[in-house]
Amino acid sequence: MQNKDKSKILQNLKESTAEWTNGQGPLSDIVISSRIRLARNVEGIPFSPRAEKAELKNIFELSRQVIEEDSLFKDSNLLLLDELTPLESQFLVEKHLISIYHAREKRLYRGCVFNQKETLSIMINEEDHFRIQYLLSGLQLNNIWELINEIDNKIEKKVTYAFSEKEGYLTSCPTNVGTGMRASIMLHLPALAMVNGINDILKAISKIGYVVRGFYGEGTEVMGNLFQVSNQITLGLSEEEIIDNLEKVNQQIINKEKKIRRDLLSNSKSQLEDQAWRAYGILSSARIISSAEAMELLSKLRFGVELGIISHPKLGTLNKLMLLIQPAYLQMLAGKDLDPFSRDLQRAILIRDKISG
Amino acid sequence: MQNKDKSKILQNLKESTAEWTNGQGPLSDIVISSRIRLARNVEGIPFSPRAEKAELKNIFELSRQVIEEDSLFKDSNLLLLDELTPLESQFLVEKHLISIYHAREKRLYRGCVFNQKETLSIMINEEDHFRIQYLLSGLQLNNIWELINEIDNKIEKKVTYAFSEKEGYLTSCPTNVGTGMRASIMLHLPALAMVNGINDILKAISKIGYVVRGFYGEGTEVMGNLFQVSNQITLGLSEEEIIDNLEKVNQQIINKEKKIRRDLLSNSKSQLEDQAWRAYGILSSARIISSAEAMELLSKLRFGVELGIISHPKLGTLNKLMLLIQPAYLQMLAGKDLDPFSRDLQRAILIRDKISG
Repeated sequence: MQNKDKSKILQNLKESTAEWTNGQGPLSDIVISSRIRLARNVEGIPFSPRAEKAELKNIFELSRQVIEEDSLFKDSNLLLLDELTPLESQFLVEKHLISIYHAREKRLYRGCVFNQKETLSIMINEEDHFRIQYLLSGLQLNNIWELINEIDNKIEKKVTYAFSEKEGYLTSCPTNVGTGMRASIMLHLPALAMVNGINDILKAISKIGYVVRGFYGEGTEVMGNLFQVSNQITLGLSEEEIIDNLEKVNQQIINKEKKIRRDLLSNSKSQLEDQAWRAYGILSSARIISSAEAMELLSKLRFGVELGIISHPKLGTLNKLMLLIQPAYLQMLAGKDLDPFSRDLQRAILIRDKISG
Repeated sequence: MQNKDKSKILQNLKESTAEWTNGQGPLSDIVISSRIRLARNVEGIPFSPRAEKAELKNIFELSRQVIEEDSLFKDSNLLLLDELTPLESQFLVEKHLISIYHAREKRLYRGCVFNQKETLSIMINEEDHFRIQYLLSGLQLNNIWELINEIDNKIEKKVTYAFSEKEGYLTSCPTNVGTGMRASIMLHLPALAMVNGINDILKAISKIGYVVRGFYGEGTEVMGNLFQVSNQITLGLSEEEIIDNLEKVNQQIINKEKKIRRDLLSNSKSQLEDQAWRAYGILSSARIISSAEAMELLSKLRFGVELGIISHPKLGTLNKLMLLIQPAYLQMLAGKDLDPFSRDLQRAILIRDKISG
C-alpha cells in the first residue's frame, strides 16, 4: 500500500484517468467496459449492516493489513470514507470506485481500496465486508475473472471467508449467495435506442435472468444510451458459466446493435452525419450545458466516432468526458462547491477544452 | 444599359452581392436595410392589370428606351420576366429585386431593371407600370429619397406620369394613390422577440398607420426575427413627412430593442453567449438544415455579433447568407433543380463554407 494522506490521494484521483476508460479494449465501439465484483465476508463477524463498531473497525484494520502486506496491492490506496465530505464521496461514486449506497451510508469504518490504474477497487464494510471489483475497457470478462480471482485468493490467504459447502459464499443479501459474483458489461447502444429496439431486448433478457441498469449501476437511470447488463443469478452456476452466459447474451445484443448500425448507415447516412456533427458543434460551442444534455450529445458524437463518420475526438476522450462532466467530479476539479448554474458553465468550459484539445 | 443576354445577366446575379446586405449602414446592428418604392404609371395607358398586350409591350419598350438613353442607368440590366423559368423568377424575388406577385403573375411584358449594386430595381408592368425601388444598408431613408427622387425625375422627363393635381400620382390600387410611395425599414429585433414584446409594438404601430411584414414583404411570414415596418398612408402627406414619421416610429422601436438588449446583457449575459455560440456551433457543423432553422440560427448568431459577444462572422456575411440559403438561390447556385432534401444538404454545405470561411 502507498502511504499517503487523504488529500494527496484525492488530488491524484482528480488528475488520474481510469484505465477502463481508454476506449481500446475489444469491441470498444460498442462495449465501454466489463466489470466483475465479488461479495465476500469474514467468518465469525456479522455482516456490516448488523456489525458493532468494534467489528467494523476490525474489518477495516484487517483490510489495511492485507493490502499492506501483499505486493499485489503495492500501488494501492486506502481511504476511510468516514473522513470524506459528501462531495468527496460522491466523486468516488462518479469515478466508479464505490457504489452510491456506500457513499451515502452513515455506517462507521467504510473504506475504499483502489489501485493506480483504477482497475481494482475494494469497498470495505459496504453491504458485505468486502466488495471486490475489477474493471477493464471493452469486452474482456475472462481476463477480469483471472485477475480478480488472483486477488480473491490472496485475500483468502489472510482471512477466512464465510462459506458454506452447500450454498457457497455467504452474503448479506440472499441474492448474492453462492458465487457472490456479479459480472456486468457496459454497452453503448445508440442504434437500438434510435429504432426503439431497446425495450424489447430489455424485456427479453430480464426474463432469462439478466438485469439492465444505468451508467452508475443499481438504481441509476440510463443516460447517454449506456446500458449495464449483468447477471441476476449467483447460485447454482460456476463463475465461468456465469461469465460465459453473460458474454453470450451480450454478444446477441451486440450483433443486433451492429445490424441496425449497418442498416442505418445504408439508409440514413446523411442523418447520422448530421446528428454526430451537430453534437460536435454544440459540445464545442455551448457556454451553458447540463450533465443530462451533455451525456446525450456525447452519446451522439460517440456514435459518429464509432461509425467512422467523424474521426475526432478519440473514444477514450469521450469516455473520460462522461465522467469529468458529472457534478461532483466538476466540483473536485474546481476545488470548491459550485451551484448548479456554475456547474453548467464550468461543464461547458471543460467540454470545449477536451473536445477541441 | 448594359447589353447582355439573359443567361449572362443571371450568371452575374448569382455571383454578385447586393450592396444593401453589406451590414455597414447606420445602426446596422439593428437595421438591416431601408427601402423606398414609388408606384408610377404612364398617362393615357390603362394600369397593367387591365392593359392590352400592345399597351404592355409599349410600356416595356418605353422602359428600355429610358434606361438605354440615360447615363444614370448605364450599368443597369433589363430582364423580360416572360423569358424566365419559375426558378429564375423566384431567384429574383429572393434577391429582393422583384415582388412575389411580379414573379408569379402571368401577364406579358413584365420586366425588371436593376443596377450593378442591386440598390435600384424597377419592376415593369407589375400592378403599376413602374415600381421603382431603392435599397440601402442600415437606416438611411433620406439618402434613398434623394437618390430615388433623381431617378424618378429622369424618368418623368421621358414619359408623362398619370397624375392629378388633387390626388397626386394615380395608381392601380387606391392605397397607393398620392405619393405612390412606400418607405420601409427592415429591423432585426431578437431582444424584443425574446421577451415577447413584439406583439405589443406591432399592435401599437398598426393603429397609427404602419404595417409590419416579413423578410420578403407583403404576404410573407416573419423569419429570423426580421420585421419590415412600412407606412400605410400615402395620401395627404409629403414624401418627406412620410419618411420623417417612419423614421420616428422606427427610432422608438429601435430604442426599445436597445433597452432590452442592455437589460439582457446585464442580467443574462451567459445565456446570450450560450445562445449565440450554440447557433455558431450548429451552423458550422450541421449536415442537413432547413431554411427555417437556418434563419432562426442566423438570427441568434447575428444577435451575438450585434452584442459584441462573438466577433465572427461579420454582419455582412450573415446578411448575405440569409439570401443565399433560400430555395431558389440555392438551386441557381447549384445550376439545377434540387428536391427539398438535397437543398437541405446543399444549404448545410454552403453555410459551413461561409461561416468558417
